[in-house]
Order: sequence, then structure tokens, then C-alpha cells
Amino acid sequence: MIDQLIEKIQAKNNPSVVGLDPDFSFIPESLLEEKSIEGAANAILNFNKGIIDAVADIVPAVKPQIAMYEQFGAPGIEAYIKTCAYAKSKELIVIGDVKRSDVAATARAYSNGHLGRVNVGGEEFSVFNEDFITVNPYLGTDSISAFLENCKKYNKGIFVLVKTSNPGSIIFQDAEAGGVKLFQKVAWAIDDMGEELIGKYGFSDIGAVVGATHKNSIEVLRNVFPNVFFLIPGYGAQGGNAETVAAAFNSEKLGAIVNSSRGIISAYKKYNMDAKDFAEAARKAAQEMKEDLSKLI
Amino acid sequence: MIDQLIEKIQAKNNPSVVGLDPDFSFIPESLLEEKSIEGAANAILNFNKGIIDAVADIVPAVKPQIAMYEQFGAPGIEAYIKTCAYAKSKELIVIGDVKRSDVAATARAYSNGHLGRVNVGGEEFSVFNEDFITVNPYLGTDSISAFLENCKKYNKGIFVLVKTSNPGSIIFQDAEAGGVKLFQKVAWAIDDMGEELIGKYGFSDIGAVVGATHKNSIEVLRNVFPNVFFLIPGYGAQGGNAETVAAAFNSEKLGAIVNSSRGIISAYKKYNMDAKDFAEAARKAAQEMKEDLSKLI
Repeated sequence: MIDQLIEKIQAKNNPSVVGLDPDFSFIPESLLEEKSIEGAANAILNFNKGIIDAVADIVPAVKPQIAMYEQFGAPGIEAYIKTCAYAKSKELIVIGDVKRSDVAATARAYSNGHLGRVNVGGEEFSVFNEDFITVNPYLGTDSISAFLENCKKYNKGIFVLVKTSNPGSIIFQDAEAGGVKLFQKVAWAIDDMGEELIGKYGFSDIGAVVGATHKNSIEVLRNVFPNVFFLIPGYGAQGGNAETVAAAFNSEKLGAIVNSSRGIISAYKKYNMDAKDFAEAARKAAQEMKEDLSKLI
Repeated sequence: MIDQLIEKIQAKNNPSVVGLDPDFSFIPESLLEEKSIEGAANAILNFNKGIIDAVADIVPAVKPQIAMYEQFGAPGIEAYIKTCAYAKSKELIVIGDVKRSDVAATARAYSNGHLGRVNVGGEEFSVFNEDFITVNPYLGTDSISAFLENCKKYNKGIFVLVKTSNPGSIIFQDAEAGGVKLFQKVAWAIDDMGEELIGKYGFSDIGAVVGATHKNSIEVLRNVFPNVFFLIPGYGAQGGNAETVAAAFNSEKLGAIVNSSRGIISAYKKYNMDAKDFAEAARKAAQEMKEDLSKLI
């Protein structure tokens, strides 16, 4: 699946992804037809459709953040799944930001639901059907490996959290772990696991999440792990910019996709536009981000 | 909420929790009325009700594992929420094994959905309403802290993954992190964070997940962190037993709740009973587990 992502980035000439993290405070009141969790879920779905329609010709991918949907229970999950399907109908790559992880037997349930198929009495169903999902490494490599079978079988990929964009990421991720930092140890492990999943552009289906706020880590990881593609959150609202992420790209101008969520989907705020014009504002912000990143590719 | 859990353990004289991890292969065919994801979700809910009815007078708590539900999409999440509500109607404590985590702003969405309230146009809704959830620490203390506000406001608790029961847990959790192992560093952090949430039995609402398979780690952590309550998975099918978990209990016979999932909910297999008698088998296994652990309290 990493090859398809790279080709979509090249076709759009844009290594950016729009994060669909619909914090409910971003959503125009006019979209909320009913004050209920079903009403909230419908508002989110319609908000997302507006954003997707506005950016689909500009960006190669979207990254829905499942927490913002899951908080509304089953209707929220339904809105998440419909958002993924709608984005795919617009030929966008879908990166499900789910940060799932568990012991292997349980992780396989996440893997089947999100990337593979679930079996019900001998019949198989595709449930979430994202192209990629994000995975948390804390439980270890046996836990991460549980996702690999479906990556191979169904042409999917994962991005494993390596160095996250939040300030507190230093607490555990930067702990000295036998001569290297813990996040570097995680990167070594996923580089190893990805060896058999390297595609035609030299990158594997097992990528790494590396925050745009960590310029030096991006540089070190790019040099040491040329086969690991980066998903880079933290651009824009969190402080990352084209300069902090530049080192993620190799001499062939490949190597990363940069995410902005709030900076795009609530752009109407920064432009002092009316909330009902959220989609128009998102389009403008997505174009500005493309232009900003164009110097890198 | 830790006080209520401890009092429930004392009332039942049983420090064990039944893991509701309904791997679909455990569920009798007779419960599957329709081969669809809705049919699967209904079968899971009815299976769980059978288990809950069979063990409700024996155990203080249940621990539904959300991956087994989420794999069936929105109907699965609905079955998870109804399972939690059914267990609470039987006066059981519900520990949602969700292992969620994200950067703080996003973690708050998980926290509101699972432990607190979501706000829709000024109205508040309780969505998942577990008593405790499990949390993954990889993102750092700012991420974990996002759950604390709702713990205080709504009398809830969390169990943070410290040392998981799977073999691969050594890869990152046992990494040497500045003189201690990473999992010990995580334990220090949650001990710190829990200081202001210590209840009348000396334990805080921020507990630790420590696998039954790690006898020595249990002993070390119990000695160093007398205020941290342990949720101990890995008893039974994964190899833990009363002897490996004994050190989790202090001189007052308090300090931990031990989970068994497969060993209880698929007990009909080990007893060579018919699948339709799954509830009767679960009751027998829950009683045996209670007896086994009774030597500890």
C-alpha cells in the first residue's frame, strides 16, 4: 500500500494529508440537526463530507482520528466508517489514526476489523477498511507483528508511533534504552519487521509516526532508516513547518507525508470566516499547505 | 472508584475479574441467528449476558476487551456498551480494557466518551460509562493526565499499562532507561500522578496493569509502590497462577485484582462440556479461580 500512497502523492504533487479530527467545537451549529449522540455523529459525517469535497483534488490522503468519533459511541463509529468510505469514493488514501495495540491474539481482532476481514459463521466481512492504521508499540514486537499478516494479504500498511508530536513525548520515548533512545529502538524494530514489505520505491508498508515538532529526530531517523516512510503530525497548529520537516525527504524527494488537522478543518477561524464557510476555508488552507511543502518535493 | 472496587472485592471475598474477550470462536453456533456483523454483535451480547448471569454472585468485576467488539464496527460497539450496562445492572464493577491513548487534546475525547460526558450543543451525554479503563503510556504523562480530570469529576479510575503479560513485553518495557527499566519508569510516573487520588484503603485511582506471568516484577513493583493497585492479566491460559501473583497482595491482603478471560468464558472446552453449556462451565471455572486465589486474601 505504501507504493499507492507514494504514487498518489506524486500525482497530486503534494506530500500532505488532511487530518479529520472533528473536535465538536469546530463544527458549525447549522450542521447539528438534533441534540443527541446520533445528531452529533451525523453532523460530523456531513462536516467531513464538506471537507473531503473541498480538498479531494488537492491532497492525496485523509487521516480520520477515531477518538473524535468513538466518543459518540456506536453512531460515532458508524460516522467514522462512512467517512472512510466517502474518502475512498473520492479516490483518497485513508490513514485511520486509531493507535491500537494489544497482546497478539487481541491485536489480531483489531487487525481483522480495520485492515482485514472478520469471519462470521464462515462468511467474511470487511468492516473498517482503512488503507493504513496507526499502531502503538508499547506492548512489543509480537503485538505489532499481529498486524503484518493482513498488510500482506490485503495490501495494507501501518504507521507505528515512534516519536509523537506532544511535549510529553520525551518522558518515555526519549528514555535512554541501552545506548539509544527508546524511540530509536522502536524504529530499529519496525525497520527490521518491514524488510519483507519493501515496495518499488524503497519504502516498506510499516512506516513510522514522527512528530513535525522534532526536527533533529526526523533528521537522525531519515539517515538511519532509509526504508521507513514517515507520517508526520504536528504541522501548523502544533508548531511544525516546512523547515522542521524538510529532513524527512530523501534525495528523490520522497519519504514522508505531513499531516495538518486543526490548521485545515478549522481554518475558517484563522481566516476570520463564518463557520458555515468551513469547507471553502479548508480548501484555501490545504492549498497554502501544499504551496508551503512544494519547496520540499 | 478504587475504594468501591476494593469494597466489592471484600464483599465477594474474591480478588478476581472475568475478562469478557468474546473471541468469536468461543461462541456457540446456536447464538448466531444471522450471518452478518449485526448477527455477530447480537451473539456476543447474548453470550456475555449468559456469562454475567452465571458469575455475578461470585466475582466483583468484569473486564470487557473492546477489540473483540470493535472488530464488528458500530454494531460491535453497541454490544460492548450494552455489555457494560448489563454488568452494571448486576452490580458488577466494569473495567473497560480499551488501552486508549493519544496526545492530550485527543485523549480528552476518549476520556469524555468512556469516563465522562460528551457535550452536544450544550447537552451532556454519558456514552460508554465504564468504571475504569486501561490506558497505554507510550505518549507520555501529558497524555495520561488527560484522563485524570474525569477520574476526579465522575469518580472513575484508570489502569495504565506497565508490564504486559505477553512474551514480547520485554522488547521495549524492559529496556534499560537510565538505571531502571522502562516499565519501572512508567510506574514511578503513575505513582506520582496518583498521589492526589489516594482513597481510604491507601490505593490511588490510577492503577497499573502488571502481567501475572512476571512474578519478579510484581514483587518489585508492590514493594516500591504501595499505593498503586494492580490489574493482573495473564492468569490461567497465559500461565499465571496464585503463586506467581501472590506478591501483589500486601499484609492487609489488598493490592490487586486478577483477570482470567479464556480460562472462564471458554471453560466449556477445558471441561469437555457442550458449547451450549458455556455459562455453567464459566460458573464452575470462576468458582475454581476464587478458591485458588482464596489462599492469598
